[in-house]
Amino acid sequence: MLNFTYHNPVKIVFGHGSIAQLPRLVPADAKILMIYGGGSIKRNGVYDQVIAALKRNPPAEFGGIEPNPRYETCLKAVERVRAEGFDFLLAVGGGSSLDAAKFVAAASVYKGNDPWDMMSNWARVPADSLPVGCVLTLPATGSEMNGGAVVSREETKEKLFFNSPHSFPRFSILDPETTYTLPSRQTANGVVDAFVHTTEQYLTIPADAPLQDRQAEAILLTLIEEGPKALAEPQNYDVRANLMWCATQALNGLIGCGVPQDWATHALGHELTALYGIDHAQSLAVVLPGMLRQQRERKRAKLLQYAERVWQLCDGDEDARVAQAIERTEEFFRSLGVGTRLSDYDIPGDAVGTVASRLEKRGVKLGEHGDLEKKDLVKILTLRV
Amino acid sequence: MLNFTYHNPVKIVFGHGSIAQLPRLVPADAKILMIYGGGSIKRNGVYDQVIAALKRNPPAEFGGIEPNPRYETCLKAVERVRAEGFDFLLAVGGGSSLDAAKFVAAASVYKGNDPWDMMSNWARVPADSLPVGCVLTLPATGSEMNGGAVVSREETKEKLFFNSPHSFPRFSILDPETTYTLPSRQTANGVVDAFVHTTEQYLTIPADAPLQDRQAEAILLTLIEEGPKALAEPQNYDVRANLMWCATQALNGLIGCGVPQDWATHALGHELTALYGIDHAQSLAVVLPGMLRQQRERKRAKLLQYAERVWQLCDGDEDARVAQAIERTEEFFRSLGVGTRLSDYDIPGDAVGTVASRLEKRGVKLGEHGDLEKKDLVKILTLRV
Repeated sequence: MLNFTYHNPVKIVFGHGSIAQLPRLVPADAKILMIYGGGSIKRNGVYDQVIAALKRNPPAEFGGIEPNPRYETCLKAVERVRAEGFDFLLAVGGGSSLDAAKFVAAASVYKGNDPWDMMSNWARVPADSLPVGCVLTLPATGSEMNGGAVVSREETKEKLFFNSPHSFPRFSILDPETTYTLPSRQTANGVVDAFVHTTEQYLTIPADAPLQDRQAEAILLTLIEEGPKALAEPQNYDVRANLMWCATQALNGLIGCGVPQDWATHALGHELTALYGIDHAQSLAVVLPGMLRQQRERKRAKLLQYAERVWQLCDGDEDARVAQAIERTEEFFRSLGVGTRLSDYDIPGDAVGTVASRLEKRGVKLGEHGDLEKKDLVKILTLRV
Repeated sequence: MLNFTYHNPVKIVFGHGSIAQLPRLVPADAKILMIYGGGSIKRNGVYDQVIAALKRNPPAEFGGIEPNPRYETCLKAVERVRAEGFDFLLAVGGGSSLDAAKFVAAASVYKGNDPWDMMSNWARVPADSLPVGCVLTLPATGSEMNGGAVVSREETKEKLFFNSPHSFPRFSILDPETTYTLPSRQTANGVVDAFVHTTEQYLTIPADAPLQDRQAEAILLTLIEEGPKALAEPQNYDVRANLMWCATQALNGLIGCGVPQDWATHALGHELTALYGIDHAQSLAVVLPGMLRQQRERKRAKLLQYAERVWQLCDGDEDARVAQAIERTEEFFRSLGVGTRLSDYDIPGDAVGTVASRLEKRGVKLGEHGDLEKKDLVKILTLRV
């Protein structure tokens, strides 16, 4: 097991009716800016619940955060925060609203010239932030229990992230009932997103960490069981609750304690989303099967364990088991209605070279060995055309 | 799934060499009282590591905490804290030193007359505490990542607890190498303790919480694998690391999120330890098999799941599977050298009535249904004579 530090101070308030607890979670004298997306919270009753809960201290509002929150939009929120002196940001929605709120909270107190410098730049990661709270309505990104945020810049077609101990939400309210009215596409995306967050921390190389392995397998097995149920029975409370808790556990740092991590699928996926506008989860569903196939020898031991424990593939030739486990993964994504090929999203074949070149230029070290080269990335994406 | 709140702000610093990080974990201007036990930390080098790390701010010392920390001893520490103005308590040792430090930290700022009133009394649970940090040398109690403390009162032969959000350690340093020299008895006790912490939150009634179930099973399976290895290879780093992380995960609140909990085995065990002086884990190893046998019909669904997933008992008659799973549990404890019968510890048969009467008098509601009666307790313990 590798050395690690684990510190996750987010207070999770989970269950039906929990939005009513807002008044005792937000500081009594806070000047609140509520940040949300395209208005689904007004249709599904969440907005009304929040406003009712905060009737003694009504929040100001900043709506219109995009599904991949844009830097340009966030800057407008930063201006309002500075001009009007808000001191608490309440994100209401999915990971996009929350990531935007985290970015705005950090950018509002950023000392440098351009807050974009905080992104994918470990030297300038947020060193301070206004406090942020969250009412989550879309289980997927895990942002509700971590210090990360992903923001996209329209101007340069970049999708970059930061991860800071100052950016953990003070609290996250998770009421599974708020997810009853999610479109199937978002439910399915959430399952894929949580699944790939887990594989990024699990399908690497053995590190003699059997508890973390089993904690990761626990999430994968539960997603495989509950994901299809959520599409079939969108108002099944326990199914929604289980998916919501899986998504949180997939990216709150726990399963990554003391083990190598990959994240190359995410790096490739972010470029696909930034350049071609596909959903985050769609990009992961496209890349992961290629990543696992191309890296199958180096990931062999963990892929065999995954084949056995997650897909119950215990017999026969080892190579066949590995291949079958990857196929089952891809089939699972497709069964949820999430396409797994570039062609499913009409992305042209020249995307392969474009994405690989962009990542090469960023100079980031990719994969659990930190050594994926442009030619590897080309091979991975070529498998996905 | 039941509604829940989860909030665990403990910073875990895990791995070899991590004691050297003490100076950046303890506040720079803290006046530190170091609390420890019977001196094993002086023999295994941990004391020297702590003193070396804190050479710029040497701690004062309070040693001699007993394996079941005594109220009477803690009060002496409280006197010193108040007289000399310590403002940070550093526990170095196992759960006993840490629980004593938590009690002393809360008692030192307690506003009532008698700090014993904080114990097993939800109305008077600590509302404040001095900050506590921890260097853990014995994986077992999970106290390093929770707000609980168990203290025994010699005068009245009582062993009671509190659990307060103010009593989480600020940090816990977990270096598996500090456990290399543990006596086998303590290593085995730690495995049993973590195992029963897990079953208290898992072997109850189904709550449609498959992730939490699997997270619990992850701990049980890992303890079963790694426990015997630790006895055979006490200096195997990864084995020690895995046990240490299992013990922490077994009682940091995570596996108990949104599920019913039992804790009747602990309630009975505490009485056995208070009255007859057996180790905490020994008391659990005695009680658990009786609890599961006597409650097997009510716990049937979870026992069948436990039989299948933890002991791979999938075929044949259901009653036989349940019986066999309980037998395998008891055999596992015995294989580690931990006795599972009252007679293994020369506890007289009249203990059955004595313990049941004491618990009845406390008026606590026991078990996941909160309805165990004196006659049930008598039956459970009678199975253990």
